[in-house]
Amino acid sequence: MISKQDLQAVHERIKPYIHNTPVLTSRLLNEMSGAELFFKCENFQRMGAFKMRGAANAILNLPKEKQEKGVVTHSSGNFAQAVSLAAKSLGVPAYIVMPSTAPQVKKDAVKGYGGKITECPPTLPEREKAAQKIMERTGATFVHPSNDLDVIYGQGTAAIELLEEQPDLEVVVTPVGGGGLIAGTALAANYFGKNCKTVGAEPFEADDAWRSLQSGKIEENATTNTIADGLKTQLGEKNFPIIQKLVSEIIRVEENEIIAAMKLIWERMKLVVEPSSATALAAILRQKEKFKGKKVGIIISGGNVDLQKLPF
Amino acid sequence: MISKQDLQAVHERIKPYIHNTPVLTSRLLNEMSGAELFFKCENFQRMGAFKMRGAANAILNLPKEKQEKGVVTHSSGNFAQAVSLAAKSLGVPAYIVMPSTAPQVKKDAVKGYGGKITECPPTLPEREKAAQKIMERTGATFVHPSNDLDVIYGQGTAAIELLEEQPDLEVVVTPVGGGGLIAGTALAANYFGKNCKTVGAEPFEADDAWRSLQSGKIEENATTNTIADGLKTQLGEKNFPIIQKLVSEIIRVEENEIIAAMKLIWERMKLVVEPSSATALAAILRQKEKFKGKKVGIIISGGNVDLQKLPF
Repeated sequence: MISKQDLQAVHERIKPYIHNTPVLTSRLLNEMSGAELFFKCENFQRMGAFKMRGAANAILNLPKEKQEKGVVTHSSGNFAQAVSLAAKSLGVPAYIVMPSTAPQVKKDAVKGYGGKITECPPTLPEREKAAQKIMERTGATFVHPSNDLDVIYGQGTAAIELLEEQPDLEVVVTPVGGGGLIAGTALAANYFGKNCKTVGAEPFEADDAWRSLQSGKIEENATTNTIADGLKTQLGEKNFPIIQKLVSEIIRVEENEIIAAMKLIWERMKLVVEPSSATALAAILRQKEKFKGKKVGIIISGGNVDLQKLPF
Repeated sequence: MISKQDLQAVHERIKPYIHNTPVLTSRLLNEMSGAELFFKCENFQRMGAFKMRGAANAILNLPKEKQEKGVVTHSSGNFAQAVSLAAKSLGVPAYIVMPSTAPQVKKDAVKGYGGKITECPPTLPEREKAAQKIMERTGATFVHPSNDLDVIYGQGTAAIELLEEQPDLEVVVTPVGGGGLIAGTALAANYFGKNCKTVGAEPFEADDAWRSLQSGKIEENATTNTIADGLKTQLGEKNFPIIQKLVSEIIRVEENEIIAAMKLIWERMKLVVEPSSATALAAILRQKEKFKGKKVGIIISGGNVDLQKLPF
């Protein structure tokens, strides 16, 4: 496991490429939850999500000769944008495999950040095959969105900043998708908090992480019929051991609870956040008794949402 | 005209009742505008708009015996909420006259902040009559949303905070509705800036302020067919002389420019803002040459918007 010093070094290394995002509070949401909530606003991060942190760290950690050959990932979401922007900031070529069915707005965002898109049929084997071909042709290095230690460490830096601002947090809540954010957060809470627990929030409709913690091995999602489109992915063998060791609990939430929490954040906090981000607040409001009277950090994971397709 | 010291004293007086809201920036909007933009986020203010500042100052400035009898205003918008919340924070009764046609969500917001609502037919004479009756019955003091010096001074404190954080601003841009915000901002820029100009932004569809500055007297709105519902009101004799003396210019913007600027702020800055707030960015993007290379402050006036009725 990474040391505290090395995790601190990750933060120092990526600082020039990321924002130290603001931590906001809401009197009303404190009243509603009975807890004291601190929202780490990674929706204000560059490219609109925490994924910029992990992508920057993974690329920075490559030796110069590998950087020159570029990086490749397959993603239709925030990680494609994160790799594109981080690579651009570092003068590194970025090859992004996207399913042909990806919305034009996401393709445009990747192009806007300088990513070179390769389209492929919308299945995982096809995506992997296309990425493999690019690696063979260019010598580029593959970067996984969540099952990569450098990515995990980078994602943890959001919680380092949150704990710098609020050292007395008793618990930090994050959404759980592929497991990179929660594993990095748990490492940061472990090293930089004073007895600060890490709790995950996950849709019932994509509860692979909850079931994995129950069974003790990585489980697949039975369904992924959730509005929280960033949370449909499953844990990997790099992040699962960290989650097993350092995460206290995963709380599952219903779809209507996610939407209600998202609406509260938009209406009362005036923040544009993704449905995935709202799962953390939804979990706190669902199990208030667990958080009552506590100082609770929430990682607002991102704000990249299609304004034409709001659930309210 | 108020002195610098007295304006500073207003700020100190209302500080316990307001948030010092964050100032955010956007690389993309800097690139688009060619200027360096600093957004003072009054959408994060208590009750969601800068109006909290003026309402708090007006109520704080009343002698104790008048405070006890309460305050009254007629408004269907943010000022009704601001007076209700400021009065509640000070233990003062608040009587709010609202047109019977006001949306339920706005009535609920006022009630939520403890305001006592009196409904009346939706015309200005009826509203004034209803407010007059309440004053006679209760002895409450009337507070005008924009044509009141204490309100104007309170609104100016947002620009004081912005200039504390960015002392070298060369210009501050605010929306222009009833004139309270821009008059207060112009006073603050005059006293606390280093040669900092104040520029207003106004819809073509409600351009009373632009025409008033042209003619030298207070003009009425010819139309108020604008999405910027906070800007349909007209200047008053208290704020107009300040605006004449201290505002450099008013830039008018088209409805489609307001919507495009609002969408940019939502999508790229992840902020929920009202259409009125977007007029300032719309004005800068319409007349880029005037702002090019400058450090420009923008007052984001508020974020109270009906998520069911977005223009995009």
